[in-house]
Amino acid sequence: MRILSGVQSSGRLHIGNYYGAIRQFIQLQTEGEAFYFIANYHALTTVRDAKLAQELTREAAISYVALGLDPARAVLFRQSDVREVLELYWILGTLVPQANLERAHSYKDKIAKGISPDFGLFAYPVLMAADILLYSTDFVPVGKDQVQHIEFARDWAVKFNVTYVPGYDPADPDGKEKGHAPGILRLPAARVQESTAVVPGIDGQKMSKSYGNTIDIFGDEKELKKRFMSIKTDSTPVEAPKPTENAPLYDLLKVMLPESEFAQADATWRAGGKGYGDYKKLLLEAFHTTFGPARKRRAELLADPGELERILQDGARRAREAASPVMERVRRAVGLS
Amino acid sequence: MRILSGVQSSGRLHIGNYYGAIRQFIQLQTEGEAFYFIANYHALTTVRDAKLAQELTREAAISYVALGLDPARAVLFRQSDVREVLELYWILGTLVPQANLERAHSYKDKIAKGISPDFGLFAYPVLMAADILLYSTDFVPVGKDQVQHIEFARDWAVKFNVTYVPGYDPADPDGKEKGHAPGILRLPAARVQESTAVVPGIDGQKMSKSYGNTIDIFGDEKELKKRFMSIKTDSTPVEAPKPTENAPLYDLLKVMLPESEFAQADATWRAGGKGYGDYKKLLLEAFHTTFGPARKRRAELLADPGELERILQDGARRAREAASPVMERVRRAVGLS
Repeated sequence: MRILSGVQSSGRLHIGNYYGAIRQFIQLQTEGEAFYFIANYHALTTVRDAKLAQELTREAAISYVALGLDPARAVLFRQSDVREVLELYWILGTLVPQANLERAHSYKDKIAKGISPDFGLFAYPVLMAADILLYSTDFVPVGKDQVQHIEFARDWAVKFNVTYVPGYDPADPDGKEKGHAPGILRLPAARVQESTAVVPGIDGQKMSKSYGNTIDIFGDEKELKKRFMSIKTDSTPVEAPKPTENAPLYDLLKVMLPESEFAQADATWRAGGKGYGDYKKLLLEAFHTTFGPARKRRAELLADPGELERILQDGARRAREAASPVMERVRRAVGLS
Repeated sequence: MRILSGVQSSGRLHIGNYYGAIRQFIQLQTEGEAFYFIANYHALTTVRDAKLAQELTREAAISYVALGLDPARAVLFRQSDVREVLELYWILGTLVPQANLERAHSYKDKIAKGISPDFGLFAYPVLMAADILLYSTDFVPVGKDQVQHIEFARDWAVKFNVTYVPGYDPADPDGKEKGHAPGILRLPAARVQESTAVVPGIDGQKMSKSYGNTIDIFGDEKELKKRFMSIKTDSTPVEAPKPTENAPLYDLLKVMLPESEFAQADATWRAGGKGYGDYKKLLLEAFHTTFGPARKRRAELLADPGELERILQDGARRAREAASPVMERVRRAVGLS
């Protein structure tokens, strides 16, 4: 079973990113043959600075590996290292009804916000479909807002197969029944990843870069300590029981502490006798237990750019191996070979 | 000076195509470094049959060579043999305002005709711009209806240069004045090719495949003779002067005969004494004088597919040589290298 996941290279990660999505994404590598690509072609629609674009790509790759993506098991690569994706993007696009793209949520949302869009934003679902179909993906873990894109990819794959594969029957896409030809493009399915944890920021709002309330996984030690110490608390005295509602510190403990440790903390929290400062220290320790190895690994990877490049080159090679036979069949089917 | 011309692979050519456009297109090879690409990626927007697509590509290449395109001098290649064009297509697309494409004539015309368009049709001007810019084209010979597309290519090249080339000044695009950086993408210009000859079909309407009134350059000998003999004439008797208005036979003589020969034919035509049949024979002879060598050359190329392939491979190699340094700079500029 092949799983494909696109990694947005959007800069420094915070613990909200991790507990909300990345942890589950990385977990997928144990469930099947997982492909992770750093979406650096897509990134060009928003990042128009070469240095920043490269840094974001590197940062994303390093972060995922540091956080546990195992490049020996999963395939990690840069989207732009398998240029075949752009050929599939063009070929697929000749079959995509313009009307589909006009009703894409991602596009309509931007329009509704009064944004004057570029073609790249409009075309984005077609490239995304090519990303998925090029690697014969079985399923794609996505947020709810991306389900439509996977449905598009599926519809367009059917359309391609119907158009170009003689004997193909959409009711039997793998051609396992009598006489039907299997499709060239495999039909992907979406698997909706529910955000398993709502992670509050240090001010109690949802943790988000735009609120400036994040705790960055790879942040500077001193700065980190300051962030933990400024988690918003009320004036409940040390000896009194602490409130569990509207208490970001409590919620963060729940997310970050191992179950048994949290049970203990929960008991003293409700009984009273310990100050907020103690819990903050506890939380900081939990942070270091969880992310310490990742922080160390990241530092190592930063110090050895050659290793990261080897990982990405190896990933690109394996991704191309998966893509080549598909593209060869696609090219032959449409008369380009 | 680099000239780029896209060849539509639309099947058998007729003499209306030749005198109306192809003759001038081929003539361009003497004016500069001429690149001719068979637009087989574009063709996928309308041709959805592998065999037909390949046949049309081959037919277009063979026809141009047979009609005088000199592959030692000009660069003749298949669009799909230089896949870099698709990378430029994506990169450029991230800078293209969606609004530009919405007001593209080619797209609006289709919509106005009630055609429900595919994305490929909508995206077409972006790929066309990539075709042009990838080869640092100085000018593109086009019909009036394509001028807008060249203007788009130019605008988007400026936008790319402004966005990604530090020190670039649109007022000094080649960077010849003090301190300005030259653009990465060269700004192309359109050269409008006026159709130099209106060629009537055998029924007197404009010669066009859709009217079924064509004389095909590479048609079957017997069929050709029949076509010439059925050119529409009136019942003016042999000895009488012939009318020069609404007389497709007269117009075809004017187009196809060398000047001095036409002068002679014109004199007898106006004086009378010769029948229409004589003129038709004269026209058929002129056809064979003009197209005999091309018909022979075409037959040779058809009999030797290896030679055509060598020509196209050599063209692709030379095209890639021109494209590589441009793409390398583009990739570096946007942060993909």
